[in-house]
Amino acid sequence: MQSKGQLKTSNNISIRFSEVDSMNIVWHGSYVLYFEDAREIFGKQYGLDYLTIFANGYYAPLVDMQFSFKHTLNYGDQARVDITYVPCQSAKILFEYEIWLLKGSENILAATGSTTQVFLDKEYGLVLYSPDFYTDWKKKNGVL
Amino acid sequence: MQSKGQLKTSNNISIRFSEVDSMNIVWHGSYVLYFEDAREIFGKQYGLDYLTIFANGYYAPLVDMQFSFKHTLNYGDQARVDITYVPCQSAKILFEYEIWLLKGSENILAATGSTTQVFLDKEYGLVLYSPDFYTDWKKKNGVL
Amino acid sequence: MQSKGQLKTSNNISIRFSEVDSMNIVWHGSYVLYFEDAREIFGKQYGLDYLTIFANGYYAPLVDMQFSFKHTLNYGDQARVDITYVPCQSAKILFEYEIWLLKGSENILAATGSTTQVFLDKEYGLVLYSPDFYTDWKKKNGVL
Amino acid sequence: MQSKGQLKTSNNISIRFSEVDSMNIVWHGSYVLYFEDAREIFGKQYGLDYLTIFANGYYAPLVDMQFSFKHTLNYGDQARVDITYVPCQSAKILFEYEIWLLKGSENILAATGSTTQVFLDKEYGLVLYSPDFYTDWKKKNGVL
Repeated sequence: MQSKGQLKTSNNISIRFSEVDSMNIVWHGSYVLYFEDAREIFGKQYGLDYLTIFANGYYAPLVDMQFSFKHTLNYGDQARVDITYVPCQSAKILFEYEIWLLKGSENILAATGSTTQVFLDKEYGLVLYSPDFYTDWKKKNGVL
Repeated sequence: MQSKGQLKTSNNISIRFSEVDSMNIVWHGSYVLYFEDAREIFGKQYGLDYLTIFANGYYAPLVDMQFSFKHTLNYGDQARVDITYVPCQSAKILFEYEIWLLKGSENILAATGSTTQVFLDKEYGLVLYSPDFYTDWKKKNGVL
Repeated sequence: MQSKGQLKTSNNISIRFSEVDSMNIVWHGSYVLYFEDAREIFGKQYGLDYLTIFANGYYAPLVDMQFSFKHTLNYGDQARVDITYVPCQSAKILFEYEIWLLKGSENILAATGSTTQVFLDKEYGLVLYSPDFYTDWKKKNGVL
Repeated sequence: MQSKGQLKTSNNISIRFSEVDSMNIVWHGSYVLYFEDAREIFGKQYGLDYLTIFANGYYAPLVDMQFSFKHTLNYGDQARVDITYVPCQSAKILFEYEIWLLKGSENILAATGSTTQVFLDKEYGLVLYSPDFYTDWKKKNGVL
């Protein structure tokens, strides 16, 4: 029996001026970009990026995203975005996220969240069964 | 016993070029703006906009937001964003959203979601009890 | 000899929360959207929108854009974006813009700017001669 | 006589999915962010970032920005943003930018542009004379 490994990675970010709102804290919409950047980093590291998915004949749009904000982030703050792949049976890609404000020795959990992606074919039809390339990817990474 | 009225409003939008991604569909991050615009419209209509909240001594940042995408929206599409205030006991502002793609006689549910806001005072401290102005607002609108 | 008419239109906007930065004024990047929305309004009114251009076999990306900021815009401000088509001989689309802060009887010029678009064919090749549909459009609108 | 040194730095970027439009190329508005990120990198390297300016009692909003697009950038492309400080007598901060698409041995100039910033005091009043801290900064960096 194969144990399910946990696939995860991290992305260090520096809060940009354009991401902050008039309350001087990161605007909630900016977190969408933090999650997307983390997916991108994950995708490149594990071979599941948009271009690979597209080269295999699919789009992988989000069908669900959720954010919980625990602590504000300010302009100039350093933070770490952790992304974890959540194994699932269906033809979906699930990720969970944690954003940690880096404060020297003490880090503070700033936000958590999750996203769900499905597969569409090139005619934008929903793919109900896991595409072969994704099944292969799961096997290769011990998450099938 | 007072019946709880349902406070809701709608915002008609036209999908902009900048909101669409390379799949030719609305980028998921754009929905954050659709929800925010709807809150703004609601706020102005019912007297609960950011400026009013701020004038009463508070910020009302989001602590939670959730999106479910049901049907794609394309550049040039016409859509309607429905926002409904969800009454609650705690010192929070809860909204639910539905985005409808307008297709003549037949409308298609494109997305649903929700947001939760809390109150911070001007020193960014979390306000645990409902601010007076918010309690008054609830009374006035029959949602206390 | 045909006199060259001046094609222009306007778009009224309300400054959104997401468009404002931590200085409490509209972030300079937001003006890109104000100009794009104005082009969109112009395009729909005069039949030169992205979808029409695309339906005729072309893209019309920007090759130049310029902004001058004269007066700050704040969250909640009402403003009017004026867009004027600038007739030219070459295979380009030129627009000039003015953004006016609406303050009752007194309006204040908040920003000016310009954009230049060229035509690409569907293989992204630069089109050196004015496409037929654009020449027809110019004739029809008295700007050839 | 002091020779004027040239202050410049570079920022390597990877084109993100959210920055690309439905033509599959970087949306023109994304360049505003590329320039802003370059200013940020420059500011941190040379001690002229927003936080330093703010700590000295000033804001430094843009009053002018200009972009020329020479070559498209696509999702996944690697590029380098060069930013150069342009010495000037007046109480302004001038930068010039070049964005190079990195294609192995051959790099392609993708865009150029410039920005001008002025100084506002904390009451948002325009500062006509160069603030002392900025004059000191110029001296220290050999650009007075």
